[in-house]
Amino acid sequence: MKQAFIDQLCAVLNKQFILINDVDKAPYLTDWRKKFTGKALAVVLPDNSDEVASIVRLCAENQVAIVPQGGHTGFCGGATPDNSGNQIIMNFKRMNRILEIDSANQTITVEAGCILQTIQDEAAEHGFLFPLSLGAEGSCMIGGNLATNAGGTNVLRYGNTRDLCLGLRVVSAKGETWDGLKGLRKDNTGYDLRDLFIGSEGTLGLITAAVMKLYPLPVSQWTTLVAINNIASAVSLLNLFQKRATSLLTGFEMMTHASLELNEKHFPHMSNPLQGKPPYTVLIELSDHESEDHVKELLEIILQEAFEAELITDAVIASNLSQAKMFWHMREHITLAQAEEGANLKHDITIPLSSLERFITITDEAIRAEFPGVRIINFGHLGDGNLHYNIAPPPDVDTKTFNQTHEKRIHDLVYAQVERCKGSISAEHGVGQLKLDDLRSHKGDVAHDLMKALKRALDPQNILNPHKVVSID
Amino acid sequence: MKQAFIDQLCAVLNKQFILINDVDKAPYLTDWRKKFTGKALAVVLPDNSDEVASIVRLCAENQVAIVPQGGHTGFCGGATPDNSGNQIIMNFKRMNRILEIDSANQTITVEAGCILQTIQDEAAEHGFLFPLSLGAEGSCMIGGNLATNAGGTNVLRYGNTRDLCLGLRVVSAKGETWDGLKGLRKDNTGYDLRDLFIGSEGTLGLITAAVMKLYPLPVSQWTTLVAINNIASAVSLLNLFQKRATSLLTGFEMMTHASLELNEKHFPHMSNPLQGKPPYTVLIELSDHESEDHVKELLEIILQEAFEAELITDAVIASNLSQAKMFWHMREHITLAQAEEGANLKHDITIPLSSLERFITITDEAIRAEFPGVRIINFGHLGDGNLHYNIAPPPDVDTKTFNQTHEKRIHDLVYAQVERCKGSISAEHGVGQLKLDDLRSHKGDVAHDLMKALKRALDPQNILNPHKVVSID
Repeated sequence: MKQAFIDQLCAVLNKQFILINDVDKAPYLTDWRKKFTGKALAVVLPDNSDEVASIVRLCAENQVAIVPQGGHTGFCGGATPDNSGNQIIMNFKRMNRILEIDSANQTITVEAGCILQTIQDEAAEHGFLFPLSLGAEGSCMIGGNLATNAGGTNVLRYGNTRDLCLGLRVVSAKGETWDGLKGLRKDNTGYDLRDLFIGSEGTLGLITAAVMKLYPLPVSQWTTLVAINNIASAVSLLNLFQKRATSLLTGFEMMTHASLELNEKHFPHMSNPLQGKPPYTVLIELSDHESEDHVKELLEIILQEAFEAELITDAVIASNLSQAKMFWHMREHITLAQAEEGANLKHDITIPLSSLERFITITDEAIRAEFPGVRIINFGHLGDGNLHYNIAPPPDVDTKTFNQTHEKRIHDLVYAQVERCKGSISAEHGVGQLKLDDLRSHKGDVAHDLMKALKRALDPQNILNPHKVVSID
Repeated sequence: MKQAFIDQLCAVLNKQFILINDVDKAPYLTDWRKKFTGKALAVVLPDNSDEVASIVRLCAENQVAIVPQGGHTGFCGGATPDNSGNQIIMNFKRMNRILEIDSANQTITVEAGCILQTIQDEAAEHGFLFPLSLGAEGSCMIGGNLATNAGGTNVLRYGNTRDLCLGLRVVSAKGETWDGLKGLRKDNTGYDLRDLFIGSEGTLGLITAAVMKLYPLPVSQWTTLVAINNIASAVSLLNLFQKRATSLLTGFEMMTHASLELNEKHFPHMSNPLQGKPPYTVLIELSDHESEDHVKELLEIILQEAFEAELITDAVIASNLSQAKMFWHMREHITLAQAEEGANLKHDITIPLSSLERFITITDEAIRAEFPGVRIINFGHLGDGNLHYNIAPPPDVDTKTFNQTHEKRIHDLVYAQVERCKGSISAEHGVGQLKLDDLRSHKGDVAHDLMKALKRALDPQNILNPHKVVSID
């Protein structure tokens, strides 16, 4: 039966783009973090949306499940197949064309397999900013960004991937093509199919192309690090910047002392330029379309106000672009420093800003009481209320053993506080297979049943990335 | 059977809030424009979300359809019942509480029946801007704004109603309550139920409360009128302002000479302060959070550049707040001036900015060739590509006869060009019953079938606002 299906595939896709040998398939079976591995009947590499549709129709006829895959850099195993060996992987890397840049409309139309950084570069060449920016931008693909509604460092100003998308082309579970590839800022013609497909991790339809928003490139950016004593001050500082700098505020990232200490341990050149080891270091970035002088003056005025209001105890403004980059590298290297210590227990959560201090106080206490000596590596996109609240074992304890023994209990402790604060257990990384089981209790029965009804309605055969996000059998 | 149902209603809702007499029901049966009228078995006025849920369960048991209604100010008959007299109207006016203002999180939580202007005022009292703004704001309700994803004059900067909403409470067709009333900027936990309900015009679920975004109040606003010779220049001017003023640009409204001439005929005090009857008058508004001087200087610099680039031929900056208001009144009174002439043929459309000039040239020509002497009243939110492209008969022709004879042909002419330009046939007013028939061909079979599948999945009994947006029987 399997060979018969492969033979049929060869009728719709050139044989060289159907990978069936173990060696050829191997690079597609394990995610970037090496946390998830699966098996696959075949890896298919379609060239265009029509080929995607043909393959889906064939899979529907043969009841073969499809796991769509971009750069495979997601954190939740959404693009990794199961272990049955009965699923096929559809990787979009060959569909990497920029289809159109429309300067007057300020949009870029791209295929799903475009690398995020390629889109950023193409936009910049035309004088525009494509603001989606995240650690994996050199290898992640826009189709995956859309499928997971990726976040990143620019959400504060420009929103999530969802907010940057105007139109989609999607192949349905029947292998039909919805051509919603429009660049409109207003369109109230029926149900919001676009946003339903975005963030559904390939379980409702396969995104093959998208129209994305562009913005004018800023003329100047200023980056600063400030020292803060407590989270309440950090939130007040954010509110001050929101009021005074409004949309010039493009970055507001928080790092605890423990996070930066870990950084320094593994990357000694990344020492915090702020004095006195502040409990919290906040990175603030302003971007301006007027002039260097205008934004610098504004930044200095606001920082002065923050000093006077005793919200900050120290501040260092990057004196040049390379220092600004170093500040951002400090923030971005925390993830790498953690990896050096071995896998830690990650929580990608959102908390309403007004509950942030309470959340951190109570959760820190609860964790420390039950697991003395653990290291809480807490950092994140504070401007969005998005914490990466990660737990590493005490320095003298074996990571693997600790994680295996305590993973569930620690997740439960953290998520209980997330629920109490009306937060989210997945801010920007999605659900995939990692959080499938946690999702039902987090969403509640009503929302979960609505999701199942949607999955059954759009993919009744359950062939699109089954057992990701929501299970219907 | 009808009486038995009313008796059951009385068990879940105080009798005084179940209107069954013709006199009591009358105010709810006809929309604000008096274009749509229907009949109703009863009008129910629930006080809270639990009562809504109880009523829906009762309707599900008895197979009675519910037409949800806010201010009844929509243009497409979405909140008007049919003529069967078997449907009930559920009006949300009693559910008008502001539930919470969270300053640190910059959110406001409101019940569905809150009047839009009340929310704006409440926000302002706390030092915030709630940016949704439209003609009916004194009587429309936020539940209706959400159900239709209302647009208005601030979309350019702050987005549609959808973009302003973070969380919803929704009663499903089964009478179950989804409590998604969260104020999070990042939340990737499964399918985007929120955006599916927003814009679905009460056909998939009943929105009973919402968490909406707030923004800091600007400290200064400057409004100007500029004279423009052609649409290409208007789009270039918009791009110039987008590049130089970016998010300070909060209004970019276009009015043709014919639109302002009609204004002046009916409201003689509203004469265009620009000289020489320019073909296009554009209203531009900048809003700033820094200072009056800062924004005024920026405006003057950009206008100077626009003169030098020959994009504009004249400009008048409002010298005070009352003149600024008068400029906005000019724009807003076009709709009223049209109404004085009798009902015209309206088209609420979006065109990609890069196709705007071609659309107007070709469509104007096609209309004038087939209907000599008609008046094309074209104006709108040009910054969003949203035109109100309306057609009035020649001055000496009876409006009613003209409309009855030519309505379909004129719609077909306009919509054919909208399709050619990859535009939308409903930018901000939704579908309701008015555009139900046009929707299938506009969306195409695949999208329309997806919509029907969603409707069947979430409302299999077809009791939530049936035959609005999409018909499933």
